[in-house]
Amino acid sequence: MKFSEVNIDKISSDSDLVFVNTPAGVSVNYTPKLLEVGLRVIDLSPDFRLKKTEDYELWYEMKHPKPELLKEAVFGLPELHRKEIASAKLVACPGCNSTAALLSLIPAVKARIIDLDHIAIDVKVGSSEAGRIPTAGTHHPERANVMRPYEASGHRHVAEVEQELSQIAGRELRIAFVPHAVGSVRGALATSHVWLVDSNMDEQDVWKVYAAEYGKEPFVRIVRGKPYQYPDPKHIIGSNFADVGFAVEKRVGRAALMAAIDNLVKGAAGQAIQCMNIMLGFDEKTGLNFPAIRPV
Amino acid sequence: MKFSEVNIDKISSDSDLVFVNTPAGVSVNYTPKLLEVGLRVIDLSPDFRLKKTEDYELWYEMKHPKPELLKEAVFGLPELHRKEIASAKLVACPGCNSTAALLSLIPAVKARIIDLDHIAIDVKVGSSEAGRIPTAGTHHPERANVMRPYEASGHRHVAEVEQELSQIAGRELRIAFVPHAVGSVRGALATSHVWLVDSNMDEQDVWKVYAAEYGKEPFVRIVRGKPYQYPDPKHIIGSNFADVGFAVEKRVGRAALMAAIDNLVKGAAGQAIQCMNIMLGFDEKTGLNFPAIRPV
Amino acid sequence: MKFSEVNIDKISSDSDLVFVNTPAGVSVNYTPKLLEVGLRVIDLSPDFRLKKTEDYELWYEMKHPKPELLKEAVFGLPELHRKEIASAKLVACPGCNSTAALLSLIPAVKARIIDLDHIAIDVKVGSSEAGRIPTAGTHHPERANVMRPYEASGHRHVAEVEQELSQIAGRELRIAFVPHAVGSVRGALATSHVWLVDSNMDEQDVWKVYAAEYGKEPFVRIVRGKPYQYPDPKHIIGSNFADVGFAVEKRVGRAALMAAIDNLVKGAAGQAIQCMNIMLGFDEKTGLNFPAIRPV
Amino acid sequence: MKFSEVNIDKISSDSDLVFVNTPAGVSVNYTPKLLEVGLRVIDLSPDFRLKKTEDYELWYEMKHPKPELLKEAVFGLPELHRKEIASAKLVACPGCNSTAALLSLIPAVKARIIDLDHIAIDVKVGSSEAGRIPTAGTHHPERANVMRPYEASGHRHVAEVEQELSQIAGRELRIAFVPHAVGSVRGALATSHVWLVDSNMDEQDVWKVYAAEYGKEPFVRIVRGKPYQYPDPKHIIGSNFADVGFAVEKRVGRAALMAAIDNLVKGAAGQAIQCMNIMLGFDEKTGLNFPAIRPV
Repeated sequence: MKFSEVNIDKISSDSDLVFVNTPAGVSVNYTPKLLEVGLRVIDLSPDFRLKKTEDYELWYEMKHPKPELLKEAVFGLPELHRKEIASAKLVACPGCNSTAALLSLIPAVKARIIDLDHIAIDVKVGSSEAGRIPTAGTHHPERANVMRPYEASGHRHVAEVEQELSQIAGRELRIAFVPHAVGSVRGALATSHVWLVDSNMDEQDVWKVYAAEYGKEPFVRIVRGKPYQYPDPKHIIGSNFADVGFAVEKRVGRAALMAAIDNLVKGAAGQAIQCMNIMLGFDEKTGLNFPAIRPV
Repeated sequence: MKFSEVNIDKISSDSDLVFVNTPAGVSVNYTPKLLEVGLRVIDLSPDFRLKKTEDYELWYEMKHPKPELLKEAVFGLPELHRKEIASAKLVACPGCNSTAALLSLIPAVKARIIDLDHIAIDVKVGSSEAGRIPTAGTHHPERANVMRPYEASGHRHVAEVEQELSQIAGRELRIAFVPHAVGSVRGALATSHVWLVDSNMDEQDVWKVYAAEYGKEPFVRIVRGKPYQYPDPKHIIGSNFADVGFAVEKRVGRAALMAAIDNLVKGAAGQAIQCMNIMLGFDEKTGLNFPAIRPV
Repeated sequence: MKFSEVNIDKISSDSDLVFVNTPAGVSVNYTPKLLEVGLRVIDLSPDFRLKKTEDYELWYEMKHPKPELLKEAVFGLPELHRKEIASAKLVACPGCNSTAALLSLIPAVKARIIDLDHIAIDVKVGSSEAGRIPTAGTHHPERANVMRPYEASGHRHVAEVEQELSQIAGRELRIAFVPHAVGSVRGALATSHVWLVDSNMDEQDVWKVYAAEYGKEPFVRIVRGKPYQYPDPKHIIGSNFADVGFAVEKRVGRAALMAAIDNLVKGAAGQAIQCMNIMLGFDEKTGLNFPAIRPV
Repeated sequence: MKFSEVNIDKISSDSDLVFVNTPAGVSVNYTPKLLEVGLRVIDLSPDFRLKKTEDYELWYEMKHPKPELLKEAVFGLPELHRKEIASAKLVACPGCNSTAALLSLIPAVKARIIDLDHIAIDVKVGSSEAGRIPTAGTHHPERANVMRPYEASGHRHVAEVEQELSQIAGRELRIAFVPHAVGSVRGALATSHVWLVDSNMDEQDVWKVYAAEYGKEPFVRIVRGKPYQYPDPKHIIGSNFADVGFAVEKRVGRAALMAAIDNLVKGAAGQAIQCMNIMLGFDEKTGLNFPAIRPV
């Protein structure tokens, strides 16, 4: 369904829930009308992810025509907002970079085991993240085999990552965030470089923190050991899983916190369906209970 | 030349300089003999990179049979030790990850513009870095399209990066360092996440620091602007260039400092030749004056 | 289940059907015992694909210890032998190259629309076809980005393709067959270059021949038109589909007949399951009714 | 130099030779003017490759404004027309597919060892062949990992391959020609499937034919044996070499004749420079004497 083809007048009241997927600045004009006619909306665009009007204006350089909806919208990361999603009218799903970045960090920030003033998130992504429109940067001879940093300062996903981490921390956080295009088609990996508050912590301690947070999550798996030491999107392509892992270097008192997703599933459509399942009271795994495809 | 084929007794005294390329723990047994017969040695192995015997023993888990040579050896990064290389008997060339990591950071550490206690180096490398021996991890179906963190704590190149940065800083530094295998065959990119001492610095200020340091370097280029904003190994494959760049996010007071090399040229054989040119008094660019091949 | 772990004495008579997957020359020693205890066997090895003892000895350079089973075994390509598979005790599934090659040609040979003395099959395959053992040829730096012909004469799959096409034609056929490793991990594409008996045939005519043959096949799709003109394994990765297509050049009186499969699904495990479904009287699509994953 | 920037009036008579590189139908309007002012032209476009006006009109669906120049132009494949190139005013360089296809076949057609009525040329090419304009088909998520037949009938390069082979054969030939996009960025491989006139020929016999033809060619190498059995563009990326090889299957009386090039060097700019060297009386290898880069 192309959004432009929606004729809102004709959506019958029997319909309950609709997905919206537009570039920034488009959904904002249509979603309010969908809500008005009584629909619940899962919005994959960034238009309702930020809570503060001034944040939207700063990062997207547009006036927000419906700022009152920003507060009402629920940030659609089930691992963080499952309960609010269940009763939400409007769910704003996070971007794929944000999903990976947040999943790598949530337990550590919640448990306050890391220095909140020095968080550097280094993201690697496949080419499918750039969308369907061919550009000079996605032309195969140019895009193949890159290790290309992009928007190394000021990437828009920073705003939603800072917002959610700040909310968990109970104070304003600022992060370093640098995405890199690498040679794959699919996948996103966040490696968050952090320093531990307690330099005596080892990997077992970090594992306990992550297991406590994610132990019951249907789509988050903690990866550690053989044969794959750390998360790698290659192992979850085609699935809604998020693999999370970590390395601790006691000598330095620092850790690498990692999360791998398929940007087109857990980073996009899969997560939207997961939200829908929660909103409609379905088993959260409905329609998402498929394995990854390997090797690709 | 395979090292095992060297018959040291037969190297005539007319020979002056020899390259050694072995795994760790092998060169250490032969290089002393080469030096004894009067040869100058360029060693691509890690056996003489570290200055302190205890560092070698800690990181390589072996006794060093010739610790007195560790102090004599010169770390073979021309951008840092050109003068010492010129008169050295034994040059120990850095690893490719180290070369990229150091080149991204040297000007910033020298100029003391960054917080030296929070340096996180995130490296991406192609598959050729793993050497020529096929393993389960380099099997094409397994290795293709990965975003695979490896040795996320305790990578051996950390030792030489910390050593050189500490020497520049005049005090002991500890770094975070996480390499990642990505889909390419060639190339290494270091993205160093740092926080600026003076949060008023902007990219122009950082540019001045890097231009002052690298302005006359024959193989270091500062990349900024169109069409490629940041360094990417794709643009220098086949050449001895190191492309260096940076992004500053004033809002956060942090910067990303980046360096891209071809791991098999500036990260290995090319750098060894560059060292040879310096040792023999040749023009430093001799035999290295070839362009990159694009696109690959 | 590793074959070596099978303790044949302990397989109870309640078990009905077992999959065997070994290199050439291994299954031949175990499968007879499995049959003796009353099991039905689906063998993915090449040990029972050929009907004639002398063919096995010629192509595999081994004596066949149970030649009487060669005649009893059914070649496990459902599109060709669905009925015999249903009642078979022993099904010998074809190789992935053979599956693609045969599916490209079966309708044309059956309908006798092509010159049977000049059939050139050019196959392209991904790296996963080489199996799980790392070798010099599958080492990522060597294997990435190849266009590498291999076994350009005498590839063992020739034997089974010639056997099946000869059976359809009612006389002995000889084919040209050249496989090429290309840059992908998954997928196999056969392009069969043929000359048309009736040079007035156009693509519509060929379409009719293929539609008549494959119209009711659950896993064969005829591809023609927009946006993808011809079969390409990329579009069916992860699925059991075989996409078939063709181009006719009337000026020359020749055609290209193409078939694309996922070598690990329709070319291996998926096809084995399809055979199992037929043998057990299940719906043929059971457990195989999943879509392809795109893009990868 | 963009062609549109040429101001022909201002080219001084001191200039001698100019390269033209345009899409079909553009060069044809400008090259005549370049010739009129006394320049020699190396044209990389297809506008002057075909000898017969009716061929140009058939394959390019345009009227040719200067048909008299078609006969005067020399087809710029040095291995075929070195002498004519030396004195030519206008050299029309072949396409990259054509270069690979012709180099695989020239010795066999010249020596009349193959059935000229059944020649099937299967070409694999990297993405850089498509030029610099991004399209839906070259968008990285779509283009990566393809095995995509394209223009499987009626590819324009057929015309020039048939023309040159017909000229060698002394009669009109018709070929089968199917190009395939595969996962690489660079490289073109032609595998020509042919049947031998004398079914007693073996590989040694074919080797003699090819060695006699190509033995003195500066850029053609015959590949056979270890470690690489057959030509593969991977081994010559970045160089002007064309690797040629073959496999003979006596059982069938057929052969596979293969040629591998870098489409951007021997298939384009390198070949143009080779022609220039010949035209200007330089050593043919001038400026082209660089090795391939491996691995990429």
